[in-house]
Amino acid sequence: MFTHVKVVGLGRVGSAINARLEERGLAAGEGDADLVLLCVPDRAIAEVATRLPRGPWVAHVSGAPPLSALAPHIHRFGLHPLQTFTRSRGAEQIDGAWAAVTAETDEARARAWWLADRLGLRAFDLHDDRRVLYHAGATVASNFLVTLYRSASLLFERAGAPPEALIPLMRRTIENGFDLTGPIARGDWSTVDAHLSAIHAELPDLEPLYRALAQATRT
Amino acid sequence: MFTHVKVVGLGRVGSAINARLEERGLAAGEGDADLVLLCVPDRAIAEVATRLPRGPWVAHVSGAPPLSALAPHIHRFGLHPLQTFTRSRGAEQIDGAWAAVTAETDEARARAWWLADRLGLRAFDLHDDRRVLYHAGATVASNFLVTLYRSASLLFERAGAPPEALIPLMRRTIENGFDLTGPIARGDWSTVDAHLSAIHAELPDLEPLYRALAQATRT
Repeated sequence: MFTHVKVVGLGRVGSAINARLEERGLAAGEGDADLVLLCVPDRAIAEVATRLPRGPWVAHVSGAPPLSALAPHIHRFGLHPLQTFTRSRGAEQIDGAWAAVTAETDEARARAWWLADRLGLRAFDLHDDRRVLYHAGATVASNFLVTLYRSASLLFERAGAPPEALIPLMRRTIENGFDLTGPIARGDWSTVDAHLSAIHAELPDLEPLYRALAQATRT
Repeated sequence: MFTHVKVVGLGRVGSAINARLEERGLAAGEGDADLVLLCVPDRAIAEVATRLPRGPWVAHVSGAPPLSALAPHIHRFGLHPLQTFTRSRGAEQIDGAWAAVTAETDEARARAWWLADRLGLRAFDLHDDRRVLYHAGATVASNFLVTLYRSASLLFERAGAPPEALIPLMRRTIENGFDLTGPIARGDWSTVDAHLSAIHAELPDLEPLYRALAQATRT
């Protein structure tokens, strides 16, 4: 469906996608693109889009921005890889990830799904007006997972325990299908209260976070 | 150091430990235990301990309770496997996990480390008065990880996206060493504000949690 895909923006995501396109023989040379894939920061999408020549298809790989950010182009779609990327890895970090496709026409949707498949992404459809809610979910799952680890590490360091010991625990929590164990699952509120007293005494900055998470876990 | 270990309480943790003791030829028969390992609920430890005959060593595998819960026994220690367990798996779920050892004497510590090694646990020392803080850290890392997934899943369901798509994202967040990406890492507060507006409109129960997590991530 596309033969020459030009990536604009070689950051974390753009570099990985461009490497995969090169592996697939789909990377564009100069001036011959039939798809321009914007891998630029969210706030730059609209400006970059207005400067692109009309004709080729245009897409972005961001999570929250709507398709209207790609105006004035009408042959357009969104393809958001639901993954966290690092510069220290290559195209293989795409493998196994899902991707949100937002499209306004059947043709755009078919092209987006085709591209997802060629990149190695598992596509699902997402309405344009649901993108922000979806992206909030991705942020909760990924960015706030970092926050959990950092907060738990602070508690471990203060307790004299090695933070790296948390990693097998967190991996297994995922492997076990997010089965809830521990004091809240057991209805053991005296332990929860003891946690709060210890946090209040030792690391009071973490108290609002613990309370909000305990409340959300309880309900 | 021990030849016959008797497990009391065959719940999630006790079952896995007992299976491993059997594999190692260390499981006690009737009346011949030189170590009694209490794998009972936290609140039951003190009562069960008082009923045990004096003589054998006594230990518990809980996270928060102090060693004094094992009174009147003085040959005692704590060995808390830092892992979440399920009944659908066996002894192998111990492998790779760390364990907190709390002991009052060099002999008790040596015995606890020996047992950890025989079980397949990586031991570290933890002071008796730091156990609650340590256990709060474990709860943040494991139990609240379940809460993150559940909350992100609610957002995904409301957005029409498949919650299972979050799993490769969460696994990779751990694999990438908890490297923070996404809007907060980029200082993109307009996206954070858009998330909050969408959550407020669609799933307001999640708003306090998102706010607390965003605040903690920012600092």
